Amino acid sequence: MVLKTKDEYIERLKKMKKNVYIDGKKVGRLDERLMLGINVICTTFDLAQNPEFEDIFTATSHITGEKINRFCHIHQSKEDLLKKQEMVRQGVHYTYGCLGRCMGMDAMNALSVVTKLEDMKYGTGYYGRFIKYLKYWQENDIVGACAQTDAKGDRSKRPHDQADPDLYVHVVERKGDGIIVRGAKQSITIPPYSDEIVVLPTRAMREDDKDYAVAFAVPGDADGVKLVTRPAFLRKRQKLDAPIAHTGVSDSMIIFDNVFVPWERVFMCGEWELSRNLALLFALFHRHSYTGCKPAVSDILGGSSALVAECNGIERATHVREKLSKFIGLAELVYAAGVASAQFAKKSPSGTYVPDPVYANAGRRLAGENIYHEYDLLIDLAGGLAATLPPEGDFYSEETGNLVDKYMARNPKVSSEYVHRTFRLIENIACSGIAGWLQIAGMHGGGSPVMETIAIMTDYDIRGMKDVAKYLAGINKELPRIRHEDLVDYYIDID
Amino acid sequence: MVLKTKDEYIERLKKMKKNVYIDGKKVGRLDERLMLGINVICTTFDLAQNPEFEDIFTATSHITGEKINRFCHIHQSKEDLLKKQEMVRQGVHYTYGCLGRCMGMDAMNALSVVTKLEDMKYGTGYYGRFIKYLKYWQENDIVGACAQTDAKGDRSKRPHDQADPDLYVHVVERKGDGIIVRGAKQSITIPPYSDEIVVLPTRAMREDDKDYAVAFAVPGDADGVKLVTRPAFLRKRQKLDAPIAHTGVSDSMIIFDNVFVPWERVFMCGEWELSRNLALLFALFHRHSYTGCKPAVSDILGGSSALVAECNGIERATHVREKLSKFIGLAELVYAAGVASAQFAKKSPSGTYVPDPVYANAGRRLAGENIYHEYDLLIDLAGGLAATLPPEGDFYSEETGNLVDKYMARNPKVSSEYVHRTFRLIENIACSGIAGWLQIAGMHGGGSPVMETIAIMTDYDIRGMKDVAKYLAGINKELPRIRHEDLVDYYIDID
Amino acid sequence: MVLKTKDEYIERLKKMKKNVYIDGKKVGRLDERLMLGINVICTTFDLAQNPEFEDIFTATSHITGEKINRFCHIHQSKEDLLKKQEMVRQGVHYTYGCLGRCMGMDAMNALSVVTKLEDMKYGTGYYGRFIKYLKYWQENDIVGACAQTDAKGDRSKRPHDQADPDLYVHVVERKGDGIIVRGAKQSITIPPYSDEIVVLPTRAMREDDKDYAVAFAVPGDADGVKLVTRPAFLRKRQKLDAPIAHTGVSDSMIIFDNVFVPWERVFMCGEWELSRNLALLFALFHRHSYTGCKPAVSDILGGSSALVAECNGIERATHVREKLSKFIGLAELVYAAGVASAQFAKKSPSGTYVPDPVYANAGRRLAGENIYHEYDLLIDLAGGLAATLPPEGDFYSEETGNLVDKYMARNPKVSSEYVHRTFRLIENIACSGIAGWLQIAGMHGGGSPVMETIAIMTDYDIRGMKDVAKYLAGINKELPRIRHEDLVDYYIDID
Amino acid sequence: MVLKTKDEYIERLKKMKKNVYIDGKKVGRLDERLMLGINVICTTFDLAQNPEFEDIFTATSHITGEKINRFCHIHQSKEDLLKKQEMVRQGVHYTYGCLGRCMGMDAMNALSVVTKLEDMKYGTGYYGRFIKYLKYWQENDIVGACAQTDAKGDRSKRPHDQADPDLYVHVVERKGDGIIVRGAKQSITIPPYSDEIVVLPTRAMREDDKDYAVAFAVPGDADGVKLVTRPAFLRKRQKLDAPIAHTGVSDSMIIFDNVFVPWERVFMCGEWELSRNLALLFALFHRHSYTGCKPAVSDILGGSSALVAECNGIERATHVREKLSKFIGLAELVYAAGVASAQFAKKSPSGTYVPDPVYANAGRRLAGENIYHEYDLLIDLAGGLAATLPPEGDFYSEETGNLVDKYMARNPKVSSEYVHRTFRLIENIACSGIAGWLQIAGMHGGGSPVMETIAIMTDYDIRGMKDVAKYLAGINKELPRIRHEDLVDYYIDID
Repeated sequence: MVLKTKDEYIERLKKMKKNVYIDGKKVGRLDERLMLGINVICTTFDLAQNPEFEDIFTATSHITGEKINRFCHIHQSKEDLLKKQEMVRQGVHYTYGCLGRCMGMDAMNALSVVTKLEDMKYGTGYYGRFIKYLKYWQENDIVGACAQTDAKGDRSKRPHDQADPDLYVHVVERKGDGIIVRGAKQSITIPPYSDEIVVLPTRAMREDDKDYAVAFAVPGDADGVKLVTRPAFLRKRQKLDAPIAHTGVSDSMIIFDNVFVPWERVFMCGEWELSRNLALLFALFHRHSYTGCKPAVSDILGGSSALVAECNGIERATHVREKLSKFIGLAELVYAAGVASAQFAKKSPSGTYVPDPVYANAGRRLAGENIYHEYDLLIDLAGGLAATLPPEGDFYSEETGNLVDKYMARNPKVSSEYVHRTFRLIENIACSGIAGWLQIAGMHGGGSPVMETIAIMTDYDIRGMKDVAKYLAGINKELPRIRHEDLVDYYIDID
Repeated sequence: MVLKTKDEYIERLKKMKKNVYIDGKKVGRLDERLMLGINVICTTFDLAQNPEFEDIFTATSHITGEKINRFCHIHQSKEDLLKKQEMVRQGVHYTYGCLGRCMGMDAMNALSVVTKLEDMKYGTGYYGRFIKYLKYWQENDIVGACAQTDAKGDRSKRPHDQADPDLYVHVVERKGDGIIVRGAKQSITIPPYSDEIVVLPTRAMREDDKDYAVAFAVPGDADGVKLVTRPAFLRKRQKLDAPIAHTGVSDSMIIFDNVFVPWERVFMCGEWELSRNLALLFALFHRHSYTGCKPAVSDILGGSSALVAECNGIERATHVREKLSKFIGLAELVYAAGVASAQFAKKSPSGTYVPDPVYANAGRRLAGENIYHEYDLLIDLAGGLAATLPPEGDFYSEETGNLVDKYMARNPKVSSEYVHRTFRLIENIACSGIAGWLQIAGMHGGGSPVMETIAIMTDYDIRGMKDVAKYLAGINKELPRIRHEDLVDYYIDID
Repeated sequence: MVLKTKDEYIERLKKMKKNVYIDGKKVGRLDERLMLGINVICTTFDLAQNPEFEDIFTATSHITGEKINRFCHIHQSKEDLLKKQEMVRQGVHYTYGCLGRCMGMDAMNALSVVTKLEDMKYGTGYYGRFIKYLKYWQENDIVGACAQTDAKGDRSKRPHDQADPDLYVHVVERKGDGIIVRGAKQSITIPPYSDEIVVLPTRAMREDDKDYAVAFAVPGDADGVKLVTRPAFLRKRQKLDAPIAHTGVSDSMIIFDNVFVPWERVFMCGEWELSRNLALLFALFHRHSYTGCKPAVSDILGGSSALVAECNGIERATHVREKLSKFIGLAELVYAAGVASAQFAKKSPSGTYVPDPVYANAGRRLAGENIYHEYDLLIDLAGGLAATLPPEGDFYSEETGNLVDKYMARNPKVSSEYVHRTFRLIENIACSGIAGWLQIAGMHGGGSPVMETIAIMTDYDIRGMKDVAKYLAGINKELPRIRHEDLVDYYIDID
Repeated sequence: MVLKTKDEYIERLKKMKKNVYIDGKKVGRLDERLMLGINVICTTFDLAQNPEFEDIFTATSHITGEKINRFCHIHQSKEDLLKKQEMVRQGVHYTYGCLGRCMGMDAMNALSVVTKLEDMKYGTGYYGRFIKYLKYWQENDIVGACAQTDAKGDRSKRPHDQADPDLYVHVVERKGDGIIVRGAKQSITIPPYSDEIVVLPTRAMREDDKDYAVAFAVPGDADGVKLVTRPAFLRKRQKLDAPIAHTGVSDSMIIFDNVFVPWERVFMCGEWELSRNLALLFALFHRHSYTGCKPAVSDILGGSSALVAECNGIERATHVREKLSKFIGLAELVYAAGVASAQFAKKSPSGTYVPDPVYANAGRRLAGENIYHEYDLLIDLAGGLAATLPPEGDFYSEETGNLVDKYMARNPKVSSEYVHRTFRLIENIACSGIAGWLQIAGMHGGGSPVMETIAIMTDYDIRGMKDVAKYLAGINKELPRIRHEDLVDYYIDID
């Protein structure tokens, strides 16, 4: 059975070598500050085994024919892309914020396309290697992080021009059995509880930057890998337990301090002309995943807004309904962008379906541009109490418990615990150590709005729009016809 | 051959009785102020006959099997809905603003659903009548207006409560061979050059308002019909002719002054329980059409922005590219909403495919909320010259022509005529008698943002979102599962 | 008596030589397309003579001690700046859009500062000349246009680098009695009915551009001056006359075709180091004037919104009140910026008070960024009828008048004429030949938002803000103290 | 000497009885979680004694003629209001977020007006009592909280209609020497380290709610007062100390469990007709204070943005400068609103200057509507690292310190500590336990945008705007004249 259980996953974590650092201390993988993030990952194992959810959380491997977790699947159709969107939206509903496993899935899909392109262009054997590695993922239901963003140093200089050559991850030595790499990847989510780390280039490289055109995978505890980690989590509940209090996330700076990677785990090594494709394709798959997870975040923020409006007895007021409709509008427009992106997806030479980039980017951008605005809406409805709610203990202490309870009374149709639970939820979401994380990830995770703007302007042929204007102005005579051009080609063509 | 030519269409107009009024005068149907709107309609005949466009501008009738203009077609599949979107976007590229024929198409599609529901609920024979009438449309390539919005009088009162009973169109007499109707419909586009006028109720009716639950069709020149018309058009060009200068539009207050309608043209008469469905379904089909036309408007505004940036030699500047990307983002998000709406469409009992309402409404709302903002972007790039461009004559007169030309020089790569044509286009779009029309139609045509908000909140089950929040807060224990519920049911179910 | 009457002003216009061109034809100054703009100017004469308004529309000349029209006054105090703001807001209430005379007033104020700086720096005698010219203005209650914006040609090149040297106005010859100038100024408001045209440089000049550092004044009909004009006005009313229908505006491209200017009318000629000050100071005074006129536009748009809400009987609805409050908020924030700008004004060496640039620019920018949004709000409330209102004639014709009237009924408390007048007003403002003009002027008149952003970033010392952040971060130890620095110095200092 | 030192203040705190609860435990007033908030208050003592700042942080008492801390002053002039604005802006620069002492100052100013009105209307002796109490404040340099917001229970019911009469604070018994009060005030800032708590009604009361029309002052540790407190603070720094890490804030639910208040501390008791004035006046003074503190928050967010742009070496990029200009624009527009509010202030019968309400509310609303947007701008520039910065310890540990430092290198002109300090500052501001507090306070502190909208629509005479529109439409003939009406009268008149 290739579908693993969360217990099997946790067993694997236990066996890993110690290379996680938090605030200057080396810690174990099951450190309690990490456990909340681990819980989130566990959900992805549970849901795949839950009969009610297996239709979307599992898929059939195109290489083995076995039933696998969809997070280990390579998209074989438009339908697969739509199912992935649905899976992500559903999963985030139970875990809030970030499911963690998209990065690995998206990296593997990007590699499935580019290793094939490499073979086509250079006659290399990367695709075979990749398929072998993929089999390992699928058979073990692997949890993988994707390490893309480099330290980057001086933003005005390219990788090879940096004062310190390590500011982008690069090959420092090629050996008979593999390569040695050095550098650091930054702002990477979930490494401390990932089985594997997949490393991709962060940008298009030129010939000078050849040594930086490198992609590979290492186990999370490979020698020389250091995971300097910032966990984000909620305060433990004393009495008023709730699923949200069991969620969390961690980001690491991953330092590669002369790490050896055997050839069978190397997927690009010097093929600089295709580093652009690989960097962009991961971003594209990942932005498409965002069109699943970001609507879920809007669902949660909108649902919380509806709860607090109910507590205040104003759920039917016009302005409340208008605000709630904003969450729905945002959620569904972002989701619709993903649907259209899947609808106009294109099959790459390896068979992987690649979503349309303009829709995926326009959808992700809309989400990123509005995350703070959504908090604005939520807090507009929730009021100042979101920031001033008495701590949990005061609700249960002998001296103040009854009094605090008494003064929490609002809509007579809901209990004071209902009010308390609602405001505690909102405090968790909007006024906690993790709230800022959620906002910042909502803007930058998977690519900032400015990156999506660049992607849109790169992919979209502005000439089409201009031809329409030229026709109307009488500059051109022929009727223009904008077809939804094969924009995906930009990503999957080789010259 | 059921595809008619524009000449055949114009011949039909010539034969109609005189009942069009402009500024207090009765005028002929080919009055020059109306001809520009007629030109737009002609385009829809031309494109259907153009081999390059026939794949989208024509369809196969499901009742006769013949090739018909898609504007006369009843959507038989999701694919049909997608093609309709594409047709509308393409068509608007050549005509700017409004193609005119969607209203009739959308009204016919709504009737195709509701006449069936009526028969199912009441055992009436409306559907058969409708099919016969549809055949007439398809065989004659009919241009039809849809008259929905009543005068409405006192907004705080329902139809039957108005001081003047005529403030909503209603049945004043039922006779053996038909009915007599009275009232007025307001802000109706294209009546003066429509063959037919399809009349639908403007809202849900209650039992008291039974006489107002009426739907029917009349020829545009039926006895007792008066078309009080406000044409909007551009100033005629003297020398610098351009397609945009041949476009225009007209709206009418349609007065029904005791108009007789034979039974075979009556499609609802007293079935008040289904007036809601009919009113909402027309709005729904029409908002889905907007997900095709509004992206075209963004394409034109964006393309014009790109042209003026080229004239100024700043097309590559970051802020320009960011602004251009906003037009693309808006266009494609609205379009994506239509694609998702088609993707989640549902077959009604009569076989007509009904698009998903949440996506159609969210898309239309986004468009309506941003039309003024798009003008803002365009004018930000175009600068004040859009409002101060010397009139055309000054470019060609002996005394000033050379001088004006000399001082229009900008980017040395483009000619002064190119600059002139570009700014004339922008003046036409943004600073002309028709510019305000385009802005106002962009907000209110087919339903204002506030109407879409209401529709979203009516259709969308807010409980789903709340269940997610309740689960995370620990109020509910079970894992919620939001399915994209069969929202369409709201429109096509009968109790 | 130095306060002239509108009749005296019109008499002056009649005596001027013919040099106005409209659409290729040379026309008289009292051409009916120009008369509507002339009406607006006349208002400024009337109000100065109206006892109820003389406290703000007149001032006491600091050079003659006589009572003069405030539009001819040089600001001698903070109070003067506040009064100017009030005058402009009040005046625009009666004329809608643009009072016309600010440009001349602002140009004269800028010259009053810079001619003094020139004398201080170079020992020239410009200030004496200016005072003499000012006396002529004040004694004759002169209406003056200010011509600043050049044709500008290739935006990437400076004046002297243009392929055609005339693309910026420049001195082509220096003679014993004066200078010869050539070039064109673009998008200039009111020249056809101005007594005088004051010409200022459009930007900072470098030494190479010396010949472009030129400022002077000519009569509106000076030899060689050609006014290529685009008038904007409303359609004449037949029966339903209203003050708004008597307003209009005109813009000209002013061509200087080898125009001779005698030395007593030359105020800068080669002093390139101060062309920056002059260009910026005119912009600054003018943006301060905008903090008076733009609130008036918001008042009108907001008042019209309130009227239409009353017609619809929804004036008390929450969402209506919220929208109305947006107009108030915008109007008063822009006005407040002007008040603060006056409050922090500084006396220049010539005694003229110069408003604070950060406040004036922040206020003008807010206005410019929101003009389209204000239309959005107005049209949201007014609905589609703003674009589809039957023409005036249909309200009064025998065949349709009663019917149209009947169907205009709305709120039973208001007459159908009230409704008609209200929607006609809104059509005029938002859906007419002049509506686009008003929008575009609202964004670009007196400087586009992007120009204000540049001005803010030029004037404001960003170090202050950074010092605060550095202190909090522990980078700097000393307590920072941001004083509202003497930002005006940037404009009135000489090195 | 009436200016006290921070040590004297802390000594006073030490002497107070224990009635502060945090998370179910009764704690001392100098609990370390409260000390960070206490630090902020201490700054207000320090700055008053600092010669560089005394001009704005001190004032001359109008009752004793002594030099007092301006936080204890009653505004005697427009100048005083301008100085207050400046003091608040300056003070917040050193403490981030909230200075704490405005609430008390604003409450005292409101009482200074209304106690006089009470005497005028009812012949009571409240004003004399108030002046005596004020003297105590000024002589002891008192720190006071203002408790206004009640628990409020069912939002659809008025105070006396609540199921539980205690949901608004009310008089439960009138005795010879004073009154007994019961109820709770919610979301009150700084009570645990306030000397005094001033209690005001939260809204206009009707005759039925007479017992709720009560205003009084109690010492922070009065018998029966329970301070259920939620402290918000930053994590302690280990090595990288910085002023921001020494700031914090606390909010309390203040429970009045049958608290006795002697008459000399009662300032309203049943005068329900003036409860509206008192509630609105506190809000008005407080919103005017916000026009001082909110610009400081924008200064800090903008300054942090400038710092991070410098770290990334992109400080001169156009888009960066445009973003920075947004902070300046917001800060200065809000500040300008306060300046105009002071400029149009009016002297109340007691001599206290009352700021103009439309400007104060419009300014506060602009701030509240934009706080999330400002975070959006900051994080747009700061990037994801704001949420993923390795914890402080990792920068200093032997195993990872050098490596983390190495990979923080960016702009070669700034040190890695500079980069670290900058991102730590941004993490503190935007991604910490206190960040959400700052956002939520930015929206709701001192009144939410919706409250300001209501205030604007209450105060502003919409008829003025309508008269302008009616004049232009020809509905009214007379020239309208909007004077900036004596809006303040609404607050300080008695009938």
